[in-house]
Amino acid sequence: MTTRPAQTPAIPAADAVDPKTVLIVHAHPEPTSLTRTLVGVAAETLGSAGHVVLQSDLYAMGWRAVYDETDFPVRADATRLNFVRESGHAFEHGHQPADVVEEQRKLLAADLVILQFPLWWFGMPAIMKGWIDRVWAYGLAYGRHGQGNRFRYGEGGLAGRRAMVSVTTGGPAVDYSPRGINGPIDQLLFPITHGTLFYPGMSVLKTHAVHGAGRMTPEDVAAVTAAWRQRLAGIFDEAPIAFRAQNGGDYPDGHVLDEAIAPGVTGFAAHIAA
Amino acid sequence: MTTRPAQTPAIPAADAVDPKTVLIVHAHPEPTSLTRTLVGVAAETLGSAGHVVLQSDLYAMGWRAVYDETDFPVRADATRLNFVRESGHAFEHGHQPADVVEEQRKLLAADLVILQFPLWWFGMPAIMKGWIDRVWAYGLAYGRHGQGNRFRYGEGGLAGRRAMVSVTTGGPAVDYSPRGINGPIDQLLFPITHGTLFYPGMSVLKTHAVHGAGRMTPEDVAAVTAAWRQRLAGIFDEAPIAFRAQNGGDYPDGHVLDEAIAPGVTGFAAHIAA
Repeated sequence: MTTRPAQTPAIPAADAVDPKTVLIVHAHPEPTSLTRTLVGVAAETLGSAGHVVLQSDLYAMGWRAVYDETDFPVRADATRLNFVRESGHAFEHGHQPADVVEEQRKLLAADLVILQFPLWWFGMPAIMKGWIDRVWAYGLAYGRHGQGNRFRYGEGGLAGRRAMVSVTTGGPAVDYSPRGINGPIDQLLFPITHGTLFYPGMSVLKTHAVHGAGRMTPEDVAAVTAAWRQRLAGIFDEAPIAFRAQNGGDYPDGHVLDEAIAPGVTGFAAHIAA
Repeated sequence: MTTRPAQTPAIPAADAVDPKTVLIVHAHPEPTSLTRTLVGVAAETLGSAGHVVLQSDLYAMGWRAVYDETDFPVRADATRLNFVRESGHAFEHGHQPADVVEEQRKLLAADLVILQFPLWWFGMPAIMKGWIDRVWAYGLAYGRHGQGNRFRYGEGGLAGRRAMVSVTTGGPAVDYSPRGINGPIDQLLFPITHGTLFYPGMSVLKTHAVHGAGRMTPEDVAAVTAAWRQRLAGIFDEAPIAFRAQNGGDYPDGHVLDEAIAPGVTGFAAHIAA
């Protein structure tokens, strides 16, 4: 047993960290699933580091996935359901359902949002897609300041926050490699990373992907959780993906990339700065 | 008024068409929405041509979107919910819920499947994602013949059928152009066209996209529906997207594209033959 010399002041752990709030939204009903294991590791790791961890356990919450007229108890137009119009009306006038309001409150409280889910048919499980569909309101996540597409991709109601997709796949990593048969994981998730998270202004971190989730040994799980802990330890110091901001000069008309930027490049790759 | 010469035999309309069965799966609760207008046009056009048209109107059906333990009333393993294992067990032993069985029956009866939906956050509305999650069973849409990934991408339980995504977007077409800020529509939908429809063996037709759905004049709607009728008139004669079959020789190990095929090309584009 060693004794700390009396003249060396103890450094309180709280000094080591700038406390942040993290929201983990996750979608798997099985407590022993890899998804839930990774959520547990994140909650423990981030909590131990002094951060506040909020969770939206969508299955446990019985989250209603289907976006429909029950989301608009007070209608702008009772004769015809236009989702964009009713979303804006409900958000602006405080007529949103309580479950949506609560999720928006958690989002706005968060410095970092982690979406943790199993990749089902190369996208989110329906319950999480329905969380986006219902919570990403007009006036908050799009249509900011009532100005349509004027403020998006780098600006918006969720600006100032970090976001990350943390995904598990059943198939092997090679299937998601640059020439793998499924397509690269970063391209498959672009509708989420760029179109859903960067769109309302969040700074999006590189996707954390764990492949081969279907057939893991305890040693595999130990390796995967260790890597996850390590990633999380530096999560507030990481540089986000360099998606190009709509109003940063690269899109003079707010729609198409300037021809001088990434000349000749088309598709998703053009929207990421080198 | 003209009179048909008696010596010219009338050609029965039924002779003009090889009758097919078409399943339209659609996701919008508003009867006057553009989505539902396009469904109506398709049902009328295809029906008039002598085809049988089935519909899955997901909102009207009250489709349950969330895939969970209620999908597996008789479990292979009651202690731990593994979706892949339980999906295979339920499909193989006839324990699937009645609503899933009915959708699979319609799918298997169809020569052409059309998914008609508004693009929400660059993907399907949750209710349709939940239709895929629940209906695309292990043993049918993946894990064919109990052999994991052996039969997929061009082979599978839905082979012999055509499929098409027909999508409406609120934003303008330019946002979805090759250098448009959202990314090209064909790349955004690759997880669906390639990963969801081609995966279980269907021949996938070029996506039918209607942009600017949010602000259409009656003249715009007339133009859009006329173009849709014209597209549908030749729908059984179109060449599908030339996605590369997993077992056609281009992927020697069933995972990665042979280096001699599309050399140097990475990402989605590599999986489409020139």
